[in-house]
Amino acid sequence: MIAEILTIGDELLRGEIVDSNKAFLSDRLLSLDVQTHWHASVRDDPADMTDAFLRAAERADVVLVSGGLGPTRDDLTSSVLAESFGRKLVRDENALEGIRAFFRAVGREMTPNNATQADFPEGAEVLANPIGTAPGFMLPLERAVFFCVPGVPREMMRMLDEQVLPRLAKRTGVAQVVRARLLRTFGTGESMLDDQLEDIAAADDVALGFRTAFPDNYLRPVARAATPEEAEAKLDRVCAQIRERLGAIIYGEGEETLPAVVGRLLREKGQTLAVAESCTGGLIAESVTEEPGASECFLGGVVAYANEAKRALLGVPQAVLEEHGAVSEETVRAMAEGVRERFGATYGLATTGISGPDGGSEDKPVGLVYLALARAEGTFVEHFVFPLDRHRHRRLTAHAALDWVRRAVLGEELLGPTLMRARGGASLPGASGKGT
Amino acid sequence: MIAEILTIGDELLRGEIVDSNKAFLSDRLLSLDVQTHWHASVRDDPADMTDAFLRAAERADVVLVSGGLGPTRDDLTSSVLAESFGRKLVRDENALEGIRAFFRAVGREMTPNNATQADFPEGAEVLANPIGTAPGFMLPLERAVFFCVPGVPREMMRMLDEQVLPRLAKRTGVAQVVRARLLRTFGTGESMLDDQLEDIAAADDVALGFRTAFPDNYLRPVARAATPEEAEAKLDRVCAQIRERLGAIIYGEGEETLPAVVGRLLREKGQTLAVAESCTGGLIAESVTEEPGASECFLGGVVAYANEAKRALLGVPQAVLEEHGAVSEETVRAMAEGVRERFGATYGLATTGISGPDGGSEDKPVGLVYLALARAEGTFVEHFVFPLDRHRHRRLTAHAALDWVRRAVLGEELLGPTLMRARGGASLPGASGKGT
Repeated sequence: MIAEILTIGDELLRGEIVDSNKAFLSDRLLSLDVQTHWHASVRDDPADMTDAFLRAAERADVVLVSGGLGPTRDDLTSSVLAESFGRKLVRDENALEGIRAFFRAVGREMTPNNATQADFPEGAEVLANPIGTAPGFMLPLERAVFFCVPGVPREMMRMLDEQVLPRLAKRTGVAQVVRARLLRTFGTGESMLDDQLEDIAAADDVALGFRTAFPDNYLRPVARAATPEEAEAKLDRVCAQIRERLGAIIYGEGEETLPAVVGRLLREKGQTLAVAESCTGGLIAESVTEEPGASECFLGGVVAYANEAKRALLGVPQAVLEEHGAVSEETVRAMAEGVRERFGATYGLATTGISGPDGGSEDKPVGLVYLALARAEGTFVEHFVFPLDRHRHRRLTAHAALDWVRRAVLGEELLGPTLMRARGGASLPGASGKGT
Repeated sequence: MIAEILTIGDELLRGEIVDSNKAFLSDRLLSLDVQTHWHASVRDDPADMTDAFLRAAERADVVLVSGGLGPTRDDLTSSVLAESFGRKLVRDENALEGIRAFFRAVGREMTPNNATQADFPEGAEVLANPIGTAPGFMLPLERAVFFCVPGVPREMMRMLDEQVLPRLAKRTGVAQVVRARLLRTFGTGESMLDDQLEDIAAADDVALGFRTAFPDNYLRPVARAATPEEAEAKLDRVCAQIRERLGAIIYGEGEETLPAVVGRLLREKGQTLAVAESCTGGLIAESVTEEPGASECFLGGVVAYANEAKRALLGVPQAVLEEHGAVSEETVRAMAEGVRERFGATYGLATTGISGPDGGSEDKPVGLVYLALARAEGTFVEHFVFPLDRHRHRRLTAHAALDWVRRAVLGEELLGPTLMRARGGASLPGASGKGT
């Protein structure tokens, strides 16, 4: 089955927002082995919308339409679709009551405009929207089937997973289902992953995709089989192979970010973390506290941006700052040990460096950064040069530092292969740009 | 003139990447008063590409094509476009030498594949690409003119601004140019802005657009005139009117974020800031230090996530924590004064609250947050209830806190109208979701 995805909205064609819906929809359709051949966007204009609907109905089996389901006079999807295919527009009383109930639940009144959101082309099947006012609908035609969903991403994604995909799965009657996993890796470059997994990637029944999402590299095994259970079994097997091959390079799976993984591991072990940040400026603390449950394992930190703050808040000796400077092994060690002691944490993590664009010198170039991890058994210190812009330098540093904590909790070696080669000056693969 | 934007690439239709090029291109075209009516994406497939090229040539005056200019066998834009319109494919020797020179400059060898990047439809004018290997090209047809640019965003944006728009400006011979500004506001809701600016928005020669980008609201005046100078003069006039009407609600213009504005103002006054963060967990420190030059005005902070950290690192008396709790006026006041003293800063800023989803109680609900700003003349404390999810609660709190610093530096009243209404329990307009 071939799909076309249409997104409706003046704001898209004016370039006011970036359309992220299409990528999400295309990706989800692939899980049912439905390939998308066309993406298109048109304005809230009846003629353009009609033209797009007719063309899509001609060339695609599945047409996903996002947007134009709101209560304003610019929201035309339902009426134009009805007109395009010679259907009457019919008010669905159940859907109308659902809209009323939604407003009651959030303590507001429905306006007359909202009633139009219960009007659908005759023959449509209404799709409930538990988190917004606009129901969606499915409209089967001669060859193509249309699924119309809201443009608001949160609402669209939920309706797709809960309402559209199950119905589409029934209709496709595909002999095969497609399932995928996402393995999240950090600490080695794409070409090295490529090498290490060459034979696994070449195997027949599971395709292995790679994607770089700085500073991580993602592995995406995709399995096809006759049933979901068989596909999942294939994925279990391949993932086990990959994990055995790559070891601690894999830090997580699915949507779980590195900070979330670190928080979970610390809580599981009953361990705690405090951070002393200079160049990362609060990025580590912020990422760990973004996750619910952080208070069980994260005690806090010090953003010791000014040198005096390193002395006053963390106890870095003035003599050390004067002799070795803020960006040095001696200072970062004192920062990590100082924050660990002051917060009474299992681990004290520290960063100090030169994220740029200014601040470099001949012996301490922009990109230089020191990390330290202090624990009961001692303090591990290392320095790197990450030749990246300020934004990326801070993020790679924070990520590498959190990865140290993850590895420490797991009892793994602290440095991944790429970080080992970046030690003291080599550039980091994946840190350089790619083109065209 | 009406435009269509086509982006080419299998990865787009597989949903592997989000297409941000279209929004950028549409927005830029508007500056020449060229409206985009269609966006479309097709795979690296000759039949689909041909169909898209032919349809675009029929219905649009300007067709921007992005992607498919690389050196691989999937890069087909040039050859398919030539075939679609019956043109020969011709190798441009100048362009070929340019590609060779590019490789020499980065110390690499050109491969035979790259030579195809110098092949263009006969009649095309080559557009140089100083930061990538793929030149672009312009191909004028009977009615439509095609501009083909690389898919890599950095290369595409530069080629558009330096090569495409100037040529297009000549061809459009528009009697008018279009210019716009972006005014960034915080502290009042969209409907209130609407009310306050109703007469200015209704005026003839400048259109006033509104856009919500949580937690800000943007105002986008757009002026049309015969020359750029006239358009800018109109914008100057309207912006002055708006600024006089809204006052301190406007915190910045263009791309300058609130943290960047705060850093700039502090540096201009020679003042410094230190932050004591509980629920915001480092977000304020991280956003201020993201900007170059932060070290001149930002001394650092304490992320006092655990209660003990509030006592040990900030000097909040144990008695206060026990009697009033971590989320209280007394505690946040002590945090702000404590961090100000310990860092020796002009301003001490503190946050403490319940960002959720857990942690609430009957008298201290999820969403409750206390802010405090300590300075030489005294400490200002206020509390709010922001009924938002964890992610948004932290960001609104951080933003509101930074806005206090901005207003303090400027000598303005600390609370904006909406924040005033949110005081102690009312919900925040713009903080509630909008639908569909």
